[in-house]
Amino acid sequence: VSPTLHELARAVAGEVRGDAARQLTGIATLAAATPEQLSFLTNPRYRAEAEGSRAGALLVGPGVEFAERNLLVAEDPYFALAQLLELYHPVERPAAGVDARAVVGPGCDIHPSATVGALAVIGPGSVVGEGVVVASHAVVGSGCRIGARTVLHPHAVLYAGTELGADCVVHAGAVLGSDGFGYATREGVHVKVPQVGRVVVEDGVEIGANTTVDRAMLDETRLGAGSKIDNLVQVGHNVRLGKGCIVVAQAGIAGSTRLGAYVVVAGQAGVAGHLTLGDGARVAAKSAVFQDVEAGQQVAGIPAGPAASWRRQQARLRQLEEMHQRLLRLERRSGAVPGEGER
Amino acid sequence: VSPTLHELARAVAGEVRGDAARQLTGIATLAAATPEQLSFLTNPRYRAEAEGSRAGALLVGPGVEFAERNLLVAEDPYFALAQLLELYHPVERPAAGVDARAVVGPGCDIHPSATVGALAVIGPGSVVGEGVVVASHAVVGSGCRIGARTVLHPHAVLYAGTELGADCVVHAGAVLGSDGFGYATREGVHVKVPQVGRVVVEDGVEIGANTTVDRAMLDETRLGAGSKIDNLVQVGHNVRLGKGCIVVAQAGIAGSTRLGAYVVVAGQAGVAGHLTLGDGARVAAKSAVFQDVEAGQQVAGIPAGPAASWRRQQARLRQLEEMHQRLLRLERRSGAVPGEGER
Amino acid sequence: VSPTLHELARAVAGEVRGDAARQLTGIATLAAATPEQLSFLTNPRYRAEAEGSRAGALLVGPGVEFAERNLLVAEDPYFALAQLLELYHPVERPAAGVDARAVVGPGCDIHPSATVGALAVIGPGSVVGEGVVVASHAVVGSGCRIGARTVLHPHAVLYAGTELGADCVVHAGAVLGSDGFGYATREGVHVKVPQVGRVVVEDGVEIGANTTVDRAMLDETRLGAGSKIDNLVQVGHNVRLGKGCIVVAQAGIAGSTRLGAYVVVAGQAGVAGHLTLGDGARVAAKSAVFQDVEAGQQVAGIPAGPAASWRRQQARLRQLEEMHQRLLRLERRSGAVPGEGER
Repeated sequence: VSPTLHELARAVAGEVRGDAARQLTGIATLAAATPEQLSFLTNPRYRAEAEGSRAGALLVGPGVEFAERNLLVAEDPYFALAQLLELYHPVERPAAGVDARAVVGPGCDIHPSATVGALAVIGPGSVVGEGVVVASHAVVGSGCRIGARTVLHPHAVLYAGTELGADCVVHAGAVLGSDGFGYATREGVHVKVPQVGRVVVEDGVEIGANTTVDRAMLDETRLGAGSKIDNLVQVGHNVRLGKGCIVVAQAGIAGSTRLGAYVVVAGQAGVAGHLTLGDGARVAAKSAVFQDVEAGQQVAGIPAGPAASWRRQQARLRQLEEMHQRLLRLERRSGAVPGEGER
Repeated sequence: VSPTLHELARAVAGEVRGDAARQLTGIATLAAATPEQLSFLTNPRYRAEAEGSRAGALLVGPGVEFAERNLLVAEDPYFALAQLLELYHPVERPAAGVDARAVVGPGCDIHPSATVGALAVIGPGSVVGEGVVVASHAVVGSGCRIGARTVLHPHAVLYAGTELGADCVVHAGAVLGSDGFGYATREGVHVKVPQVGRVVVEDGVEIGANTTVDRAMLDETRLGAGSKIDNLVQVGHNVRLGKGCIVVAQAGIAGSTRLGAYVVVAGQAGVAGHLTLGDGARVAAKSAVFQDVEAGQQVAGIPAGPAASWRRQQARLRQLEEMHQRLLRLERRSGAVPGEGER
Repeated sequence: VSPTLHELARAVAGEVRGDAARQLTGIATLAAATPEQLSFLTNPRYRAEAEGSRAGALLVGPGVEFAERNLLVAEDPYFALAQLLELYHPVERPAAGVDARAVVGPGCDIHPSATVGALAVIGPGSVVGEGVVVASHAVVGSGCRIGARTVLHPHAVLYAGTELGADCVVHAGAVLGSDGFGYATREGVHVKVPQVGRVVVEDGVEIGANTTVDRAMLDETRLGAGSKIDNLVQVGHNVRLGKGCIVVAQAGIAGSTRLGAYVVVAGQAGVAGHLTLGDGARVAAKSAVFQDVEAGQQVAGIPAGPAASWRRQQARLRQLEEMHQRLLRLERRSGAVPGEGER
């Protein structure tokens, strides 16, 4: 039987307004929800859509008012949504065991509770922890370590020596441990600098599809605990991310740069090499960072500067045509003859 | 025997100027074509190269004149080129059947005319339509549906529940249905918001190599019929593309944004989340769109505004140094003493 | 036994300052090196870190002074570092032979010294040269040619007809030969222009993880000898790179553009289609090139112009607010009444 609004509220420590006994069969978007389903309003820009929704109840934050609607009011409605989605959609772990069509090298230590899919490849001497899932077509190089409950999706690739903590997720096509981009140019030849370090990923990190994280030249490229990396992100060799960083799709971080804890790099932004971004620094989407960023600072632009200055500059830029006209008027008034090439 | 210029013209509803009986063995670029081959001039910037080409005949558009050249004049020469390339290079479908080394889960419905390559993996309960090609090393998750004549190239990955229409092409390394990037941050922990929706791709869509399309949090991420997506593109969760959209390489579209029909997003452009781009909107290369775009509007810049304004602004920007000099001159004339920090 | 500082210096044609008999067990970063290890200072910004390092000796360039330190002074210390890393970390080639679980098509010519890993796929009629490594899960299409000592990492994909020279490296997930992005739009339908050319990679090219290189529409997409391409780069159809080019992560080069020799395209930069960049041209990170670039020219910006002008323009831009204030002051002085909309 489906849970009642009362039961859902209890699960997320929220409060009910309206019919607490109403049963809800699932969660759906505002547009798709039926009267038997719960929907949610976590972003105020969808208020009008919420008004028109047929949903049987709405999950909302404190202070959100709807006349004649069943509401589940949660302190942090987006967090409550995460909890309720998990309640309605429990994750199914595949059956434990190594598929007969997987290729496992000698000297591996595979926990009996781990799952290794058909056609997965695990190189010699690797350690695969409790409850780990290595999906079909994932490739784990030699001497890798994979912590408990970590999931490698199909076509994820770990080069030799990569270390993943517990509770990580690596999406399809992500590549960890490919060579860093380093060459010494000598008489017109770009001579490869051997990349003999590795990649270390701490606990609870999620890495998006087709993202690439290069191994260190020496020592480590390291992604801090709980960091979340989106799709198609590039992380250069010897980069270090502190804990809880967020790097959004198609962003890039060049070699040897260090991010403190809880740094956010928004989509398509770039950070040059050998820089330091302090704890809690935030880089706006599409920006290019060419110098260090202080802790807590927000930067934007190409090259990136303080975000507030960038916004003011953008506003002035939109007045540039007008400034030019005013300058011309002043010149005419003052009798100045514009020089050649000035129109 | 090779077709004559007359026969080629008939195939594309074009007209011959010159030797209609000339046989042409194939199509080649202006630089490479021999007197036995057809070449083409579809872009006027290659006019000089066309003059010097050894080609036996040239495919051109209306009004293009060449003295003493065999011409095939077509209303839309680029479309005619597509037709002639297909005529000279018919696509070979691989033999039907499921390779013995493929891994097919229980409960799948694979059409007898479909091809499933060696080491391809198809999860339980998936439906593979008439004439579909699932190449070696492609991975199809559980409960997927693949419409007639669709081709998955090697290493394409469909996560569970992905639905592809008829006549689609998915290039190598493309990932459809990976988790959307959503976390609720609670006491310093980024808690994953389960992504329980799916990806739906309508008929006739082509998806480039290593492109990523995230599954919806709830409901669908949807790519409209006939849309063409280039390589290394990111499409976020719950994005919807109308029919006939074009998204060029390395562009990104963030979560929940909706594109109407025939929207063009040029290379390396980015569109922020929760926006609406109307039918026929065009986003210039390298732009960043942070607000809605009206139907038919062309936008450019970071942040993107009307393309014409952006071009004027760029022109003025190149005069900024000059404007500064003129301002200084006026200040000297007027006796104004520049304040501190002004030079 | 470990080599002495004297022996290391001899290997790189350098000079010793200090204890030439000191044995060094390996190379490590400034922070990690023990007194038994060599470290290096190739970038002056790490001078302070070098002062505090516990390393037993430092590799440095000419003119770098350290009191009371064992030094190995090399003319080009970064090149010497490459040599020493190779000395300490010799590359191990895997055993020759074709794994029984690989899938090799008919008519292939695989050199007996080559290695083909488990679950690799090689299409009909391909030629694999001396000492080549095709790793597990790499896919080589039909009719490909792979030159001596070239390495394909796991999940690299070569579409049919791709040709790789000798001594190339293709990293995981890179895709060579996917279809170029070409459509002729006809009555609202984007009709695919068949892409019947191929990709040719000359000797000594390295291609990064998840990079995509499209096949030509006709003829070739060609990467010149010794060029180095980083991760997540897009190379469009019919592009030609001269020898020794460097293309950094997430950069993109659109169709039919030609780069001379030793062109550098920095990270996240884009180059539009049908352009020519002369020998030694340099494109700054995050730039967008919309017109030809002369040999030796450095360009930056969106749209890209001469790098020096771009830097001056950026400096002036930061003064834009101040320029506006000065303009206002002049207007007040001159008695000009700002028009409507001017504040």
